[in-house]
Amino acid sequence: MPVSAPRLADIAPFHVMELLGRARELEAQGRDIIHMEVGEPDFPTPEPILAAAREFLQDGRVFYTPALGLPELREAISGFYRQRYGIAVPASRIAITAGASGALTLALACLAAPGSEWLLTDPGYPCNRHFVRAFEGVPVSIPVGAASNFQPTRLDLEQHWNERTAGALFASPANPTGTMLDAAELADIADFVRQRQGQLIIDEIYHGLTYNGDAPTALAAGDDIFVVQSFSKYFQMTGWRLGWLVIPEPFVRDVEKLAQNLFISASTPAQHAALAAFQPETIALLEQRRTEFKARRDYLAPALEAIGFRITAQPEGAFYLYADCSALTDDSFGFARRLLEEAGVAITPGIDFGNHGASSHVRFAYTNAQARLAEGVERIRQLLA
Amino acid sequence: MPVSAPRLADIAPFHVMELLGRARELEAQGRDIIHMEVGEPDFPTPEPILAAAREFLQDGRVFYTPALGLPELREAISGFYRQRYGIAVPASRIAITAGASGALTLALACLAAPGSEWLLTDPGYPCNRHFVRAFEGVPVSIPVGAASNFQPTRLDLEQHWNERTAGALFASPANPTGTMLDAAELADIADFVRQRQGQLIIDEIYHGLTYNGDAPTALAAGDDIFVVQSFSKYFQMTGWRLGWLVIPEPFVRDVEKLAQNLFISASTPAQHAALAAFQPETIALLEQRRTEFKARRDYLAPALEAIGFRITAQPEGAFYLYADCSALTDDSFGFARRLLEEAGVAITPGIDFGNHGASSHVRFAYTNAQARLAEGVERIRQLLA
Ligand SMILES: Cc1ncc(COP(=O)(O)O)c(C=O)c1O
Ligand SMILES: Cc1ncc(COP(=O)(O)O)c(C=O)c1O
Repeated sequence: MPVSAPRLADIAPFHVMELLGRARELEAQGRDIIHMEVGEPDFPTPEPILAAAREFLQDGRVFYTPALGLPELREAISGFYRQRYGIAVPASRIAITAGASGALTLALACLAAPGSEWLLTDPGYPCNRHFVRAFEGVPVSIPVGAASNFQPTRLDLEQHWNERTAGALFASPANPTGTMLDAAELADIADFVRQRQGQLIIDEIYHGLTYNGDAPTALAAGDDIFVVQSFSKYFQMTGWRLGWLVIPEPFVRDVEKLAQNLFISASTPAQHAALAAFQPETIALLEQRRTEFKARRDYLAPALEAIGFRITAQPEGAFYLYADCSALTDDSFGFARRLLEEAGVAITPGIDFGNHGASSHVRFAYTNAQARLAEGVERIRQLLA
Repeated sequence: MPVSAPRLADIAPFHVMELLGRARELEAQGRDIIHMEVGEPDFPTPEPILAAAREFLQDGRVFYTPALGLPELREAISGFYRQRYGIAVPASRIAITAGASGALTLALACLAAPGSEWLLTDPGYPCNRHFVRAFEGVPVSIPVGAASNFQPTRLDLEQHWNERTAGALFASPANPTGTMLDAAELADIADFVRQRQGQLIIDEIYHGLTYNGDAPTALAAGDDIFVVQSFSKYFQMTGWRLGWLVIPEPFVRDVEKLAQNLFISASTPAQHAALAAFQPETIALLEQRRTEFKARRDYLAPALEAIGFRITAQPEGAFYLYADCSALTDDSFGFARRLLEEAGVAITPGIDFGNHGASSHVRFAYTNAQARLAEGVERIRQLLA
């Protein structure tokens, strides 16, 4: 009898994949589907990054890099922190990984002792609890709602922290809500976790994609915080699989051992390509695209509210709107299926992000041209009319 | 007090990294170092693979792929098994990963329950015990030596299997020895593990790099075996980070959930590049290079024996010679240091591959032009003279 390890019983698939499979079937039948479920930018990789990749590939010498990454890329990221945030992060504390996914793997493999509890938000990025569980930690959900902007408060931490708690993992801006922690909130959370001698991991993958000002980095709240980052979203390099982890100094050696053993190294072409990510012309292009994302958000949020959804917290970043659909349905998964079948619009049901309020929420991604978003809204409006 | 999870105490760094760091220092001082420690082919990525990558990068649409990989690449690998081995492996059982490293992650994350024991060889690929340990399994070493060609026997398995044993993970050809299991031995081992209701994982990363005939695949011994493979070695794509896992059908869904959550997907440029890996002109080039590796092995083994090393088992594959240096030293790590300092030759000490016989063995990699290998041998000869 083939039996997987017990952890597999706790690891959920993405429910949106079922919808996506059905969407592909419908498309194969000639139906036009508007994709508002996709969690990645719709823009191509910026040309300077592509050019750097092509240049690197000239001679074909595509070998392993050091486990923590190309020294010059680690330096470039250190420079990025200096320039953009005015913060000194030595390159020696930066590990290059296969996306934020690889950074989360390293952080949890390093920190999660079996049975130790980790505080996460519900709703939140679905993989977080599975990273914790994969390394035999115990994910503990903090239900968050509009009252706290779908972010945890110090009070939440106090209420959920116990003697088994080892740490907390939060994202700012968050998926699926796009809401942020401000600098004071970050400092407050860091202070609390520090007092309890826990570890704090902050996922900053949506930094750069914020529309009412820049997001503060958790690194300003202390050099004892693990920060997860990625070239996937702001830098629009999802398929390249490249990101990084900022490591508190005392953990660098352990994270390096893990990286050597679990990964050998991150993608070499991606690392060379990413060297061009911080060039002024790349940044200029990315800032243009940021403006485009902002315009989409500013269009989509009121448009959805006009047809019966409610956006209960301010979505300041990422490219998601987490919409309350309770005026329209009490079964968001069934509702998402119906939207796909009858309106040809794909969205993500709340269940993919946790349990708290899941059946009354859906996520819209604005990773599609504004005209398509408008067409999607119109189709939903007609369906609901 | 920052404390890593207990597993970190059991996860060792690569000792050769210390030597490598020193080698770089010496090189920076102008010393010429002959690298015979490098575990990757010295050849560039084959031109058709590079061309496919460049072509794919034209339009910059580098997005995530499905979690188990590009359907056409999974099909191509299925075709490769049909053509090269005459074996039917449906594409649905193939997961594309970030190297064999990613495949080992998926296999152990899926199979290793906390406290379950996993049989490995000592010496063996050093990361294996760390993959087991990362997911809270318990690595158990089977000491192997020249008598069994540094491979495990059915008797070894019988002796080491107990009620906590969940499975076994072996490589053929193996690192650091280059020795193989033949088809009968594979079938015998598979049969034994099956009887005990355990799981068998066979790492076939060095397939294609064999010099006395092709290696048999474990897939011929049953469709209940996990097979780890990679584009790193035979296909000479180390830095691209691409490999695959062949999954027994009952585990496909669980492995897919893990891949979705832990990785999202493997590198998209690498996957598109690898579509060219099975083209006749790529294979023709790889077969030429295989001939070159064979010539190097046929040169190096007797050359090392002539200066006092002993190659105690037939190295049929990979690009390594695991040499007994007991006639020259009883401290292989110190010996490797001395070779580096005094002869400018970098090799890997036995300690990186386990404990059994570690102090009396070193690994030579023939991932360097034959003239350089000869120069290395000559320098060692003079040092020992
Ligand atoms: C909050 C969050 N963290 C991490 C990731 C992982 O992204 P990647 O591995 O591509 O960097 C995602 C992807 O959607 C995400 O939304
Ligand atoms: C036996 C063995 N397995 C797996 C790997 C991992 O290689 P990769 O992740 O590049 O495919 C190696 C690398 O040296 C190896 O020797």
